[in-house]
Amino acid sequence: MFRNEMPHYEILSPAGLETIERGWQRIVSEIGIEFLHEEALALFREAGQRVEGSVVHLDPQFVLDQVAKTPREFHLRARNPEHSLILGGDHMVFAAVSGPPFFRVGDERRDGTLADYELMAKLVQHFPQLDLCTMPVIEANDRPLDSRHLDMMLAALTHTDKPVFGSALSTANAQDCVAMTELLHRGTPIAEPPDADGRPTASVMTIVNVNSPLRYDDRMLEALLVYAAAGQAVVVTPFLLMGAMAPVSVVAALAQQTAEALAGIALIQLVRPGTPAVMGSFLSTIDMQSGSPSFGGPESAQGLYASGQIARRYHLPWRAGGGGLTASQTVDAQAAYESFNTLKAAFMAGANLVVQAAGWLESGLVSSPDKLVVDVEMLRVLREQFTPLVVDEEALAFEAHDEVRHGGHFLGAEHTMTRFRTCFYRPLLSSTENFERWVSKGARDATTRAGEIWRTAIEGYQPPPMDDAVRAELQAFVDRRRAELGD
Amino acid sequence: MFRNEMPHYEILSPAGLETIERGWQRIVSEIGIEFLHEEALALFREAGQRVEGSVVHLDPQFVLDQVAKTPREFHLRARNPEHSLILGGDHMVFAAVSGPPFFRVGDERRDGTLADYELMAKLVQHFPQLDLCTMPVIEANDRPLDSRHLDMMLAALTHTDKPVFGSALSTANAQDCVAMTELLHRGTPIAEPPDADGRPTASVMTIVNVNSPLRYDDRMLEALLVYAAAGQAVVVTPFLLMGAMAPVSVVAALAQQTAEALAGIALIQLVRPGTPAVMGSFLSTIDMQSGSPSFGGPESAQGLYASGQIARRYHLPWRAGGGGLTASQTVDAQAAYESFNTLKAAFMAGANLVVQAAGWLESGLVSSPDKLVVDVEMLRVLREQFTPLVVDEEALAFEAHDEVRHGGHFLGAEHTMTRFRTCFYRPLLSSTENFERWVSKGARDATTRAGEIWRTAIEGYQPPPMDDAVRAELQAFVDRRRAELGD
Repeated sequence: MFRNEMPHYEILSPAGLETIERGWQRIVSEIGIEFLHEEALALFREAGQRVEGSVVHLDPQFVLDQVAKTPREFHLRARNPEHSLILGGDHMVFAAVSGPPFFRVGDERRDGTLADYELMAKLVQHFPQLDLCTMPVIEANDRPLDSRHLDMMLAALTHTDKPVFGSALSTANAQDCVAMTELLHRGTPIAEPPDADGRPTASVMTIVNVNSPLRYDDRMLEALLVYAAAGQAVVVTPFLLMGAMAPVSVVAALAQQTAEALAGIALIQLVRPGTPAVMGSFLSTIDMQSGSPSFGGPESAQGLYASGQIARRYHLPWRAGGGGLTASQTVDAQAAYESFNTLKAAFMAGANLVVQAAGWLESGLVSSPDKLVVDVEMLRVLREQFTPLVVDEEALAFEAHDEVRHGGHFLGAEHTMTRFRTCFYRPLLSSTENFERWVSKGARDATTRAGEIWRTAIEGYQPPPMDDAVRAELQAFVDRRRAELGD
Repeated sequence: MFRNEMPHYEILSPAGLETIERGWQRIVSEIGIEFLHEEALALFREAGQRVEGSVVHLDPQFVLDQVAKTPREFHLRARNPEHSLILGGDHMVFAAVSGPPFFRVGDERRDGTLADYELMAKLVQHFPQLDLCTMPVIEANDRPLDSRHLDMMLAALTHTDKPVFGSALSTANAQDCVAMTELLHRGTPIAEPPDADGRPTASVMTIVNVNSPLRYDDRMLEALLVYAAAGQAVVVTPFLLMGAMAPVSVVAALAQQTAEALAGIALIQLVRPGTPAVMGSFLSTIDMQSGSPSFGGPESAQGLYASGQIARRYHLPWRAGGGGLTASQTVDAQAAYESFNTLKAAFMAGANLVVQAAGWLESGLVSSPDKLVVDVEMLRVLREQFTPLVVDEEALAFEAHDEVRHGGHFLGAEHTMTRFRTCFYRPLLSSTENFERWVSKGARDATTRAGEIWRTAIEGYQPPPMDDAVRAELQAFVDRRRAELGD
């Protein structure tokens, strides 16, 4: 997995960080956070917090004390140990697009299906730049609503051997995903206490979105409670489109984001102290004329730089709301520059987890394999770009200059000949073909070539090996639960 | 003009900077720099440097002493004082694409013409994100070779009232451009001594490329000598494609770049101490299989971050080799993510001058107005993104949270209503339209929309006012010189 050992780009002064701290502390204590779930309210009440109706007024120091129980780093186990991950520290983990109902290939846009889910899971398995499969990488609209999480979880667990996200839509969904994780790792506890490096282990992760502003709804809280009780990792993400769910001020939104995320993490630690949790951020704007969301813009990037600083202040693993985000309807220049802006910001800000890292289109309404390949190319560039430069005498290569001297070229130099295979980044998608050759090969633009790349990957796809007994147990579980759920 | 007051992204440790300093010092002294021009050699010889044949072995301390005579900041005068610029410090100046022989609009690619030059100059005038017109913004292939610099300079001076680059192809070209600058600013000296802030004034700027590795050819030196003698600004740019003109090591290329740039700047200061000069950088790679150049990759970005640090070490205004660079043949996703990578790197690295900031395509062989609009959008985003965030109690907007509280929305909040017009970035090109609306308007991608934007700009173009006598004198000069040059 990738480690980002490059400097962090930090834009908040110490005083600025303290101002934002004052901001979130005032929000949690004076306005409070609403939790629409009796069990959550009871936990806060028992912990001595002031609960009025469904609103919890949190003591800032209590929040900090709870947050401090969160592991700074943790393991996320894959069924293939080579694909297990570490969240936190300088580790950086990339997850595919998550959530879209629509699927786009070329110029066709339609409802997503389970077959599309399987296709996307295979691409997650294929590309080493993608570390885990999301829930849902595309919504399987052709499957019954109440049991489709079973189909999607099964597809993720069988078509990849990387870690997966579990569903967070209800108690039943969460319990099913935890149960399937137990079946997958039969015989091994899915939660393990900290190792010698202080890292506990979880075997499935989920994302709990806040119903911003300042509210956690019942369904999300049900899932939070299930995953936390099982010691599984929870990413708490305030999804903030400024102008709609947050004030039209990046600083105010950052204070709100911190208030919401820390309150949720405090609850997780009340349920089961030491449970792995990730501070989420997802900060963008709406177009104030149409109300449509915007992505990849300047506010979002500034929010990312600042969010990284805030997460480090509280020693929390951090999910950047900076995947390959774009409002573009198609895989064009806009899709690329907006996505590159938020992706690069996530690297600059030292994110630990980047969800929506590949395949996102049209403000998250669309999942696209064409876009996934474009994003994978960007990730490949950025991973190399955020690998420290070694500066030493050998790198100075004085002997190369001494050999070539004035006005010559380095193509045939000894220094070049011994390094030419690995000295530079090698693109997957980008073309450097000269014009004549590019025309002779059909003048295909990057999006067309991306389509060819994923089709070739799918043709060559080999499912990762899985124990037949495990596969049968998972299938039996799905069949049984589907019947119980009435589908 | 834009000031970049954000933190610099720095990747070299103090020890790393010193290693690179040792590298360039060893190159200039042990291998030396070749200058294919007797006057340049004589100047170095008179200054006590060891000259062997056409190679000057430079004493590193001599180089540092000469470089220290370069103004840290200077004025570049425009005929419209509102468009005059400052180079250096935290000022950041953006110039359009420079040099391409070919012109691309939509799917048509053909030889550039003077009409294309005029079109591009009008777009430079139109967009406030572009600060000056280059030479050539597109090569006017339909004009006679020996006098076409006159046509292009006249087009730049009449269709824009922003500063312009002059030609650097020969003594005659350079003298003609300086003479036309004098006619333009009739009555005012085109070079002025430092003002109270230590900033001298120049009225035209040129780019001198080094014939890397380690060689300055006669034509570029002719131009350097003419502009320096006239006290006009010279950007000294080693154009390094690693693997061809530099070793396959970013660190070695940085040492070479510094050696070449500082040697050229030392010569400028020998000609006329205190002449404005800019340290140039332009670092990329070649595809080691085809020999084709690559742009927008990780080596280029790392080179940019480091180059900014090196320029600041020597207190030099710095040109980043980080415009909207791409190898892509068309205005597609690749063109966008490669360009965004080098453009954003220039901001992160604190560049003072970004040439090729808009309109570059196909490794610099193509000038494209479609691409220019895409790049202008990226510049608009980045200028806003690299404007410091104000973090204070007002920005916390506690009253907005207090008004909306839990689960509501901020669309109608008082805080929003008083700020909605200016609170967020407003795109020029990017679309946030929902899918249905986007389809109903023709499902135009970003490149198609970019074409519409520049055509509208051209339709509405109004030439900046120019004194009739000045215009007549410039035209008479062009006519006379064209006849003298035999065209």
